[in-house]
Amino acid sequence: MGAIRPGEVCTAVPERNDAALWFVGRLRTPWQNPRDCPRQGDAVAGPVCRIEIDPRWTEALTGIERKERLLLLYWMDGARRDLVRQSPRNDGATTGTFSLRSPNRPNPVASSVVTLLGREGDVLLVRGLDCVDGTPLIDLKPDYGGRPCPEH
Amino acid sequence: MGAIRPGEVCTAVPERNDAALWFVGRLRTPWQNPRDCPRQGDAVAGPVCRIEIDPRWTEALTGIERKERLLLLYWMDGARRDLVRQSPRNDGATTGTFSLRSPNRPNPVASSVVTLLGREGDVLLVRGLDCVDGTPLIDLKPDYGGRPCPEH
Repeated sequence: MGAIRPGEVCTAVPERNDAALWFVGRLRTPWQNPRDCPRQGDAVAGPVCRIEIDPRWTEALTGIERKERLLLLYWMDGARRDLVRQSPRNDGATTGTFSLRSPNRPNPVASSVVTLLGREGDVLLVRGLDCVDGTPLIDLKPDYGGRPCPEH
Repeated sequence: MGAIRPGEVCTAVPERNDAALWFVGRLRTPWQNPRDCPRQGDAVAGPVCRIEIDPRWTEALTGIERKERLLLLYWMDGARRDLVRQSPRNDGATTGTFSLRSPNRPNPVASSVVTLLGREGDVLLVRGLDCVDGTPLIDLKPDYGGRPCPEH
């Protein structure tokens, strides 16, 4: 968990939890440290990364091969969850956490859209990730770019 | 929690939780029942809805007035979390949960992009929601439509 910067403000976090998450897999990328990660994933020219799905959920991948783009939700393990005002430039100027896309937020869930290159059993090969190696996966689903979903 | 349809398959859910969520607010919409909700939110012509933020997190809204579009993450309370194969059309044909955008998934987190119309204290007025009244909010952040984020 990072240190507080000048001007940043914390709140008292809730004493009880409202819902629980199960990690359904891990994201495998070339980046071992947050400072090595690209600013934004590149779903066309970025490196090929792996999504390793927990065997408990393998059957939930059925039919995934036919999807071109996937929306991933993942958990940013190292985030501070108590900041309500942050200073992105570390210059004393602050703004509210919900006005920022910072990983430090009450529920540190991030999203990425990736292109699916292939599947090898419990593993998906994708382009477009920008997170650290080993990041826990919360969910994946087809991405239709905001167009109506053809499922029904 | 809904009944299982013909052909659908459940898995044994994990015995322990991996991470916890805190609800940071509630979404207030005109729809009291899932069957009344629109298929997809309309951020231009949809009804004006309210996001009520928990007072603990009010200060995290600082600066939000200057954002035009917000990405919301919310929790689909009534979802089944144990389905690995689902039959969207209820016709015996099934596919994997991760190949679908169904609310029934291991971690039932949904997302919407909305337009921000205004703020009144702890309340944001938005267009583009499609969820049931009272849905718990997990996160909100500016949406830049995939363009680089101007924060740093």
